[in-house]
Amino acid sequence: MIALRQTNSVFKCIIRSSSPALGEIQRYLSPIFVVARFYSAGVMEVEALRKLVMEKQSAVDKQGDAVRALKAAKVAKEDIDKAVTSLINLKLDLKSASKELQAKISDEGDSGEGAALSKEAFRQAVNNTLERRLFYIPSFKIYRGVAGLYDYGPPGCAVKANVIAYWRQHFVLEENMLEVDCPCVTPEEVLKASGHVDKFTDLMVKDEKTGMCYRADHLLKDYCKEKLEKDPLLSVEKVNELKQVLAVLDELSAEALGTKIKEYGITAPDTKNPLSDPYPFNLMFATSIGPSGSSPGYMRPETAQGIFVNFKDLYYYNGNKLPFAAAQIGQAFRNEISPRQGLLRVREFTLAEIEHFVNPDDKSHSKFQNVANLEFLIYSREEQMTLKPPVKIRLGDAVAKGTINNETLGYFIGRTYLFLTTLGIDKDRLRFRQHLQNEMAHYACDCWDAEIECSYGWIECVGLADRSAYDLKAHTEKSGVPLVAHETYPEPREVEKLVITPAKRELGLAFKKNQKMIVESLEAMDEVEALELKARLESEGKAPFEVCTLGQTVTLTKDMVSISKELKKEHQRVFTPSVIEPSFGIGRIIYCLFEHCFYTRPSKAGDEQCSVFCFPPLVAPIKCTVFPLVQNEKYEATARFISKSLTAVGISHKIDITGTSIGKRYARTDELGVPFAITVDFESSVTIRERESKVQIRVSVDEVASVVKEVTEGQSTWEDVLWRYPTHTTNSVDE
Amino acid sequence: MIALRQTNSVFKCIIRSSSPALGEIQRYLSPIFVVARFYSAGVMEVEALRKLVMEKQSAVDKQGDAVRALKAAKVAKEDIDKAVTSLINLKLDLKSASKELQAKISDEGDSGEGAALSKEAFRQAVNNTLERRLFYIPSFKIYRGVAGLYDYGPPGCAVKANVIAYWRQHFVLEENMLEVDCPCVTPEEVLKASGHVDKFTDLMVKDEKTGMCYRADHLLKDYCKEKLEKDPLLSVEKVNELKQVLAVLDELSAEALGTKIKEYGITAPDTKNPLSDPYPFNLMFATSIGPSGSSPGYMRPETAQGIFVNFKDLYYYNGNKLPFAAAQIGQAFRNEISPRQGLLRVREFTLAEIEHFVNPDDKSHSKFQNVANLEFLIYSREEQMTLKPPVKIRLGDAVAKGTINNETLGYFIGRTYLFLTTLGIDKDRLRFRQHLQNEMAHYACDCWDAEIECSYGWIECVGLADRSAYDLKAHTEKSGVPLVAHETYPEPREVEKLVITPAKRELGLAFKKNQKMIVESLEAMDEVEALELKARLESEGKAPFEVCTLGQTVTLTKDMVSISKELKKEHQRVFTPSVIEPSFGIGRIIYCLFEHCFYTRPSKAGDEQCSVFCFPPLVAPIKCTVFPLVQNEKYEATARFISKSLTAVGISHKIDITGTSIGKRYARTDELGVPFAITVDFESSVTIRERESKVQIRVSVDEVASVVKEVTEGQSTWEDVLWRYPTHTTNSVDE
Repeated sequence: MIALRQTNSVFKCIIRSSSPALGEIQRYLSPIFVVARFYSAGVMEVEALRKLVMEKQSAVDKQGDAVRALKAAKVAKEDIDKAVTSLINLKLDLKSASKELQAKISDEGDSGEGAALSKEAFRQAVNNTLERRLFYIPSFKIYRGVAGLYDYGPPGCAVKANVIAYWRQHFVLEENMLEVDCPCVTPEEVLKASGHVDKFTDLMVKDEKTGMCYRADHLLKDYCKEKLEKDPLLSVEKVNELKQVLAVLDELSAEALGTKIKEYGITAPDTKNPLSDPYPFNLMFATSIGPSGSSPGYMRPETAQGIFVNFKDLYYYNGNKLPFAAAQIGQAFRNEISPRQGLLRVREFTLAEIEHFVNPDDKSHSKFQNVANLEFLIYSREEQMTLKPPVKIRLGDAVAKGTINNETLGYFIGRTYLFLTTLGIDKDRLRFRQHLQNEMAHYACDCWDAEIECSYGWIECVGLADRSAYDLKAHTEKSGVPLVAHETYPEPREVEKLVITPAKRELGLAFKKNQKMIVESLEAMDEVEALELKARLESEGKAPFEVCTLGQTVTLTKDMVSISKELKKEHQRVFTPSVIEPSFGIGRIIYCLFEHCFYTRPSKAGDEQCSVFCFPPLVAPIKCTVFPLVQNEKYEATARFISKSLTAVGISHKIDITGTSIGKRYARTDELGVPFAITVDFESSVTIRERESKVQIRVSVDEVASVVKEVTEGQSTWEDVLWRYPTHTTNSVDE
Repeated sequence: MIALRQTNSVFKCIIRSSSPALGEIQRYLSPIFVVARFYSAGVMEVEALRKLVMEKQSAVDKQGDAVRALKAAKVAKEDIDKAVTSLINLKLDLKSASKELQAKISDEGDSGEGAALSKEAFRQAVNNTLERRLFYIPSFKIYRGVAGLYDYGPPGCAVKANVIAYWRQHFVLEENMLEVDCPCVTPEEVLKASGHVDKFTDLMVKDEKTGMCYRADHLLKDYCKEKLEKDPLLSVEKVNELKQVLAVLDELSAEALGTKIKEYGITAPDTKNPLSDPYPFNLMFATSIGPSGSSPGYMRPETAQGIFVNFKDLYYYNGNKLPFAAAQIGQAFRNEISPRQGLLRVREFTLAEIEHFVNPDDKSHSKFQNVANLEFLIYSREEQMTLKPPVKIRLGDAVAKGTINNETLGYFIGRTYLFLTTLGIDKDRLRFRQHLQNEMAHYACDCWDAEIECSYGWIECVGLADRSAYDLKAHTEKSGVPLVAHETYPEPREVEKLVITPAKRELGLAFKKNQKMIVESLEAMDEVEALELKARLESEGKAPFEVCTLGQTVTLTKDMVSISKELKKEHQRVFTPSVIEPSFGIGRIIYCLFEHCFYTRPSKAGDEQCSVFCFPPLVAPIKCTVFPLVQNEKYEATARFISKSLTAVGISHKIDITGTSIGKRYARTDELGVPFAITVDFESSVTIRERESKVQIRVSVDEVASVVKEVTEGQSTWEDVLWRYPTHTTNSVDE
């Protein structure tokens, strides 16, 4: 369950690592943006803030204990309600203080307003190239488009296919995961069980005259930011108040938001009309399954639920053994109220999700040692709370110290690091940030986000959560089908136990094909239900019994089930597995990759800046281009021959036989991030040019496809082949 | 645009070709079904029927000419309407006769009723294995499922990924196609332009008391079939009437269907309640984009529209050159009224579609010679009309004779044949059937379906259509953006021409950012519109002008556009390209593949039948399994070592270390269609067993991964490696 939330955060200077050590080559970089800062630093001292957060945390803990004690003592409902209200208020206080602390941390390292502009300029430069070369196209453009919907054009589509293929190899194949492929159309009851029907909402306000809709928090945020940025006469108190509002924005209730909007006199931005009170809008695309109108459904908001509902079959498929992981890659949908942030906040996107099921008592991972020595930026809860920056730490140490809750979660964090950096994400702009206590759902055990820094700030691209047994329990409860695992004890144990023995023969005679569902429902009863049923059967001889999975109530007689408490030898334990969920937002990863791979360098003549995407061959949409140096039948025939040999070895490529200058054609391939360009300047031998170094080698026509294949697929590096073939020096002004 | 229509048709005997020529091996086949027949043959003689069809065709042609003449003569509307009504009636007559003719063809070769049962039994056997081994899972099963929605479980998902990867290699990479990836959520106006909002419907009736919905044609079909099958007292006239109804079922209007339902006294099958009149139900899943409720949208019914709306950008990306092809793989949705036919008729499915854009005056294909010598079953319109069976014919001859309209269409038919047979579709149960004249849309130039025979009959799995310029013209008209191509003449030509010259400067000053849209709309005017605008501007000095793309009407003044008719030298021609569209129903292909690859053979002991899927390695969900012969730490270590080397070379595999007998473990892998099994019976060397022949060879542990890789990826055949390694003979009773 990836929560596509976004953090406002420091935007750091891009320092690109230099290209392979080739003495004569220089890397030209355009340092067109540096660091950004949105609004001025707070007033309160950091230490004081930290102390405040600690105090509030302890107040919340105490009140939580008090509520639990009241519940256990079964005091009157209004007393419990009162205590709960007070707990909620304390939590809100805590969140507000924590948020302010976080905002303070984000302020560190910021440096003035001009930087925000160059950040925008950089983003504009990347996006111009992406749109011009059809990496993306606004969907349905000839019909004026739809906000939040984008197509991948040919190179974008190829990059996406490469990223997904590598994900499948790196995760599914490597771990022998059970991949499934479920429909997007999902019936309501599944999403009712998962909580999406009730809770997957944003707060919305409507223009009372035109009916135009806005996200309530966006309007409040825009108001506060504009005030802070543009009103020089604000008092210190007002500045603090507005900053406070920004800090707790995500946590405000509908009432609190409405109050603030009224208080500040915020009106509809387009018309200045008054606004309605905020109310929740469900973010799922609703539809109806079948023609009757009586089966509501939604386009799935995530792929995870398709795995959870199949747990029983998948566990069986895995030989009834834990741990195992299932995975799914597919579309997910989110009907945003008003999408912002271009390619990062869209209404339809591809998710790749893993659900790794484990015994809650043993979250070790047999392959953890393979990743334990990785070192990368980890931003623990403690560092966030003590205002320290993220630190580079050995993964094995983070797990050993308990910073990361368990080996399995740690293993996936390590594998995610390897996945992202292999794709070309800059390791210095990638960090794993732990959720603060107040960010996590009550049932979650530990959560981390892989955050990648781009021009929008630090963006959550992968969520890694230990969700304990929550999802399987929710579906067990709603469906009546037990989603559980079994553990066989080495030695049987003697325990007093509720024994439910459905009489299958009698049930079969009475209920025919429904027998199986009834048996499963009987076996799924908890102790209270079972003892009630037993009492009724004993007193009346028969009893009604609701079978959720059938959607009906049947009448059972005494001979159909035996219920008793017995001293039994237990040979096994039945339990709900915990699930550890790495969830990848493929589109966000790709967008960040585009920003990390983009740079400009001057043309040889020095008169213009050329855009380059330095994709690794693994990701590059096209692996190589083939150019005849001049338009000439012989060279074109050679080019076609080479094209055929490249197709034969499975290397995607493009022939360019336009008469454009060779320099311009190189520039075009650089813009698409093509790593290698073959130029046909003889019939027997040709040159291969590497994008980053611009160095060319001379290779015979018969060998060229296999050389490109080996450097593209990673059997050799460019440095390896540099030793094997003569370097080619060109006299052209273009290069 | 794949029309997922289904034909009732002959079900032929499966004669499986025998496995590679290995002398000692026998193939055991279970001939559990043979041939089917639904209802008895007609009464009319074939020749008479054929003559009738010819007559009716000529009557339709004549009346069509008459209507065109009346329209040209601009006679009164009611006269034209009358003539059109008469044309429609003649067409319906023609369709009815053609259908009866087709039904007659389908009857040929049928052989009695018992066969229908064994066909069912075969399907049951395949589907049992598919469900038991989780190739498919009914979606949301624990919530009692949703009709027409299925999940692919792990092996099904792997097969699907393999089929899609091969499709991408065989089509996209081979032809340098421009692949795009567009959203499923589509705004209404796009599907209004394509015709789906108005015409993508099925006729539905409702139970007047319960509101339960049924497909009107299904009820009528069921009624007729049951009467024909079960009522021995039917008169010859009644038999003919019912057969006639079945023949024209697809073509009946809502009124005609309603009349028949009333006439036969058909009631709701579940309740026997009366039924409503039939009315059209749109088969798209409807939704709403954004929160306002004012932007209706649908889940796309096909992927093709995403390509058409991007034509302009894609043409530019291709250097403004024709021909080129674009492709898209993705989900499509169809909200069936009441899905039947299990895995073939589903509510969500994956399509892979190609739109190949060509100059309508030149549909030759530069690579046609590569496929011209292929020979396979072609079922031309002429053969269907003359009641001959499909014939094996050389593709080059079919195009030369004009049976297939043009080389490009022929090329894709050939490539589709290669694609399907390489996957493992039996070439003797694959045919390319041409649409009859009355099956094609009026704008289509020639249409063929790749039909695969399975237990449901001959199933349309790929549609190959030359759709002329229809789709691009429809979107040009609705959006106002010209989706056209340009052809430069070798020599300029002098022609009288309408010249529209928007004054960009004046338009820019007056309309700012809207200038571009207005210029495009002005340039897109046809002659009539342009001359009207010219007249009004000249008489009044200004004129209103509707800009579709802006959704508003602007006021133009005389200085903003110059319109004239001039003698001009034309250097180029502007035209709407034709599109040739191969459209693949991936799910249907996979299901047919499962049936074609399934067979049973007795276990060695001969006491039971074992199921086998003989997938080619390309398609197999898992390429090999690894078993330690007995449970033993040393063998298990060796197995893990082999597993690691297989992962390193990218071969998907599964370890099975259960203590189950080796024969049972082989049977399990056969059921999943795993082509190779590695058994660890020493620490230094192991055996590899090939699924079809069950022959084993002995290979050293260090070599085993590379041997499996080369036979799996096709660098070597199993026969090749048989010569290189010693054959292993087992003494186990299991094998």
